[in-house]
Amino acid sequence: MTVSETERRAMARALELAARGPRGVNPQVGAILLSPSGDILAEGWHHGAGTAHAEVDALSKLTPGAAHGATAVVTLEPCNHTGRTGPCAAALIDAGVARVVYALPDPTPVARGGADRLRSAGVSVEPGVLADEARDLLRSWTTVQRLGRPHVTLKWAQSIDGRAAAADGTSQWITGPDARADVHERRAQADAIVAGTGTVLADDPALTARAADGSLLAHQPRPVVIGSAEIPADAAVRRHPITLQQFRTRDLGAVLARLRADGVHRVFVEGGPTLQSAFLREGLVDELLVYLGPVLLGGPGLAVGDIAVPTIADAHRLDIRDVHRLGADVLLVARPASPAQQGDL
Amino acid sequence: MTVSETERRAMARALELAARGPRGVNPQVGAILLSPSGDILAEGWHHGAGTAHAEVDALSKLTPGAAHGATAVVTLEPCNHTGRTGPCAAALIDAGVARVVYALPDPTPVARGGADRLRSAGVSVEPGVLADEARDLLRSWTTVQRLGRPHVTLKWAQSIDGRAAAADGTSQWITGPDARADVHERRAQADAIVAGTGTVLADDPALTARAADGSLLAHQPRPVVIGSAEIPADAAVRRHPITLQQFRTRDLGAVLARLRADGVHRVFVEGGPTLQSAFLREGLVDELLVYLGPVLLGGPGLAVGDIAVPTIADAHRLDIRDVHRLGADVLLVARPASPAQQGDL
Ligand SMILES: NC(=O)c1ccc[n+]([C@@H]2O[C@H](COP(=O)([O-])OP(=O)(O)OC[C@H]3O[C@@H](n4cnc5c(N)ncnc54)[C@H](OP(=O)(O)O)[C@@H]3O)[C@@H](O)[C@H]2O)c1
Ligand SMILES: NC(=O)c1ccc[n+]([C@@H]2O[C@H](COP(=O)([O-])OP(=O)(O)OC[C@H]3O[C@@H](n4cnc5c(N)ncnc54)[C@H](OP(=O)(O)O)[C@@H]3O)[C@@H](O)[C@H]2O)c1
Repeated sequence: MTVSETERRAMARALELAARGPRGVNPQVGAILLSPSGDILAEGWHHGAGTAHAEVDALSKLTPGAAHGATAVVTLEPCNHTGRTGPCAAALIDAGVARVVYALPDPTPVARGGADRLRSAGVSVEPGVLADEARDLLRSWTTVQRLGRPHVTLKWAQSIDGRAAAADGTSQWITGPDARADVHERRAQADAIVAGTGTVLADDPALTARAADGSLLAHQPRPVVIGSAEIPADAAVRRHPITLQQFRTRDLGAVLARLRADGVHRVFVEGGPTLQSAFLREGLVDELLVYLGPVLLGGPGLAVGDIAVPTIADAHRLDIRDVHRLGADVLLVARPASPAQQGDL
Repeated sequence: MTVSETERRAMARALELAARGPRGVNPQVGAILLSPSGDILAEGWHHGAGTAHAEVDALSKLTPGAAHGATAVVTLEPCNHTGRTGPCAAALIDAGVARVVYALPDPTPVARGGADRLRSAGVSVEPGVLADEARDLLRSWTTVQRLGRPHVTLKWAQSIDGRAAAADGTSQWITGPDARADVHERRAQADAIVAGTGTVLADDPALTARAADGSLLAHQPRPVVIGSAEIPADAAVRRHPITLQQFRTRDLGAVLARLRADGVHRVFVEGGPTLQSAFLREGLVDELLVYLGPVLLGGPGLAVGDIAVPTIADAHRLDIRDVHRLGADVLLVARPASPAQQGDL
């Protein structure tokens, strides 16, 4: 059986619902129940650990029997696992659902097998609908699942020839207002924003996510500084609405573990070059945002230093996923090409 | 009077005709004569110094009187200058042409004024049609006119972080087959291809323009090497179909002057980093082609070295004109932002 346009539209809606849920230990999931004629019977989403799964949330909005013969459209394979809630696959079977359409397979060992259970019960099952969109939504959650650490985005601005600053250290502005606005929007998607002591001492950044007029965006990432140097009492980062967290270490794995334990899923690393190169060297990067300003600088102010590539065969290979023009600048969005380094489903 | 679709199409055709002429002391120019009802009466183009100008070439294909009331569509403002041929403006007036549509004004002091002369004679004159396309066609010629030197394109391949090679000097391949094919096509547009002795000794390049199967493309740029080091008798560049020209100097201005005197209008500089940086430092660059391979390399193998930028205010500012995806790679096409450095009309 093929996937109908109505089911595809319902999946797009389910993804919107999913995003309403919090990012946390559990994945963000959305669900829609469609009548046999394609009308929306109920919507649901997962509101966070300890609450009903999305399918059960949707079912709960119907009177018993009302889902008989319905199609469930869910962003993640219904689980087969009895945790704080029962297995969703069983709940759907019990409700008499005739068909289940989902986007992504459940990657967790305890929860997988829902699709098989549904099929055994005679339910028509269709996987893979809008899988790319669902993967984007769950990228940080799957990184946490697979790699046991937060999803790490590394962002830097450089001249075309790879410099983050001119010979005397000046760097304002390599990129223009459109690129800076884009950075602030992306900061607002992150749970934590990370900088090295070098950058904090040199640039006194606020590490906030701001609108063009300087006002704070609704969501603020928490500010994190890595390194032992003392941060002055009057540093701008100390006026951040969330209290500064400083890790007096160079052990990036330990920092990420600690952040994960504190519920941080998305880390946005904003330099400087020393810290960036360390993240790259240790293979702790899931996404790269390289903002190219339309300048050449030459000289010693490199954006990337030593990343342990003695010979070309050892190059850090990337996939350039997107190329955006932002005013006079260009943004490259890339990911490590080696799947071993990635947290993808 | 506005420009008709027929006139615009005729201009596109005139630009094709112009490109048939040789690049040389004179600009490449094409001309079309249209009847009052918009039919093509005659086509012409400039076949090189000492031959008829494009308008006169087109007129010569008609019987006397046949151009009466016609519209002349010409890629460059008709000249007002009596050289080896008479002024084209006068020829068009004498032929009874009623209207002249052209793309670019004539930038040379001796030849300009044709439009005014036409208007004084009561001819309807319309400038600026497909001016961008005409400018692209004449870019190298206008550089020669304005700056008295050939048009210089600098091309290099680099990692995203600005390295031309890994720490041990290995660099094959930073970019993939699509990018390399693009380079070869662009080489075939050049009159000379230039490399430093460092690159010739390290890589033994052929400096030919080749198809994917390795066969030579129809037009070959002449191979030029700059620097004093001895080039081995068995170097690949010595098997180039055109005899190698070596300049045992570091005076790039002198090299360009010599090349111009030899009829070279388009120079394609392909590295290495030392030579590239010297061209940049001396402001002798009109176009940059930066091929970004999807890798990070770090380390000392910089594509651009010292280009005399002590502080950010002295950055070499560029306009990024085009961004192309070529397989897994990205090509940035840029020009110096400072108009003083450019040979534009
Ligand atoms: N273009 C851009 O996008 C951009 C972005 C940010 C900064 N910048 C520029 O970059 C410059 C500052 O960069 P930077 O490289 O000097 O400083 P940095 O990378 O911000 O900080 C370096 C410090 O990070 C700490 N650190 C933590 N973990 C580390 C590890 N695993 N390895 C090494 N160090 C680690 C160390 O601090 P301790 O020594 O205190 O222990 C180290 O000294 C400034 O000029 C700034 O303007 C440019
Ligand atoms: N990624 C790429 O696109 C690319 C392209 C080409 C090369 N490469 C790599 O680059 C390396 C070679 O580059 P390179 O920088 O060593 O050599 P290079 O730039 O090819 O040549 C340097 C030489 O150019 C001569 N020269 C002429 N005019 C000069 C001037 N104004 N200033 C300074 N030198 C001038 C000097 O020769 P004399 O000393 O003989 O007088 C100088 O030693 C190789 O490893 C090659 O693989 C990469």
